[in-house]
Amino acid sequence: MKNYIKLLALFLLAGVTFVFAADQTPEPSHGITYPKGWQSWSTIAVSHRTDNNTLRVILGNDVAVNAARTGNTNPWPDGAILGKVVWKDVQLENWQAATVPGDFVHAEFMFKNSKKYSESYGWGWARWLGLEQKPFNKGTEVCTSCHTPVKDRDWVFTDPAVLPE
Amino acid sequence: MKNYIKLLALFLLAGVTFVFAADQTPEPSHGITYPKGWQSWSTIAVSHRTDNNTLRVILGNDVAVNAARTGNTNPWPDGAILGKVVWKDVQLENWQAATVPGDFVHAEFMFKNSKKYSESYGWGWARWLGLEQKPFNKGTEVCTSCHTPVKDRDWVFTDPAVLPE
Repeated sequence: MKNYIKLLALFLLAGVTFVFAADQTPEPSHGITYPKGWQSWSTIAVSHRTDNNTLRVILGNDVAVNAARTGNTNPWPDGAILGKVVWKDVQLENWQAATVPGDFVHAEFMFKNSKKYSESYGWGWARWLGLEQKPFNKGTEVCTSCHTPVKDRDWVFTDPAVLPE
Repeated sequence: MKNYIKLLALFLLAGVTFVFAADQTPEPSHGITYPKGWQSWSTIAVSHRTDNNTLRVILGNDVAVNAARTGNTNPWPDGAILGKVVWKDVQLENWQAATVPGDFVHAEFMFKNSKKYSESYGWGWARWLGLEQKPFNKGTEVCTSCHTPVKDRDWVFTDPAVLPE
């Protein structure tokens, strides 16, 4: 009998662990599932914005990185995901003329699928705020209005940074 | 006879192709082998230097990225390789307050091996210049003299940028 109780306890524990683990994934933004693992993606470019004092790295999934490095970016291919990771900028203590990442602001993503997202110019637009990665759900118009200056560049600001092969 | 000549030509062609392919890997810098595939490494940080107008991304191999993300950076573990990829900065045409990568300048690397590189503070120091990745061989003193302000930080300027898990 004791063994049955132990076994039951083990199953319950496993169940709780599973639910807890499942809860770690942030909720969707604009109906889009969180792109787990983006922290390991390769770099496409970087940027520094002096209007809001932020430093950024632009990352991509395999489809996006391959497109970036073969010049296949207008339009970007379906399946490409571009990520922009944003930090407040701070002065580097040991090299005063260098600006480096401070507080984490948000990570935002563009998901290319010309059919699925035909009503938002072929892209799904998503953003997760802060280290807790709280989903942004104020409407894709917030994203697309800002990206309008680059509507002729498939709505993407980023030029892939030049790299040696 | 004609077939023999064809066969010979084929072998010669294969040999030339092989030599040509082998030649694609840049020569060593300070005796250190070129770290092929760094273009796919994950991001550790970014920076913007206004003293020489360059934007940078700091990348790492798996050992370095794991160390960065677990706070294991003073000292960095043996096997860690840190890469700094440098571009001249330019103003983004479609967003005037943004600075983005222009011409590629160089990629430079620190290879942690406390025994092998004990005479240069536990690190191998290497740099490859321009898109042709010409090896820099003017001596590791050029590198270490610049890094002296951070000798108490295991000779590394970079603080890994904060990321959500």
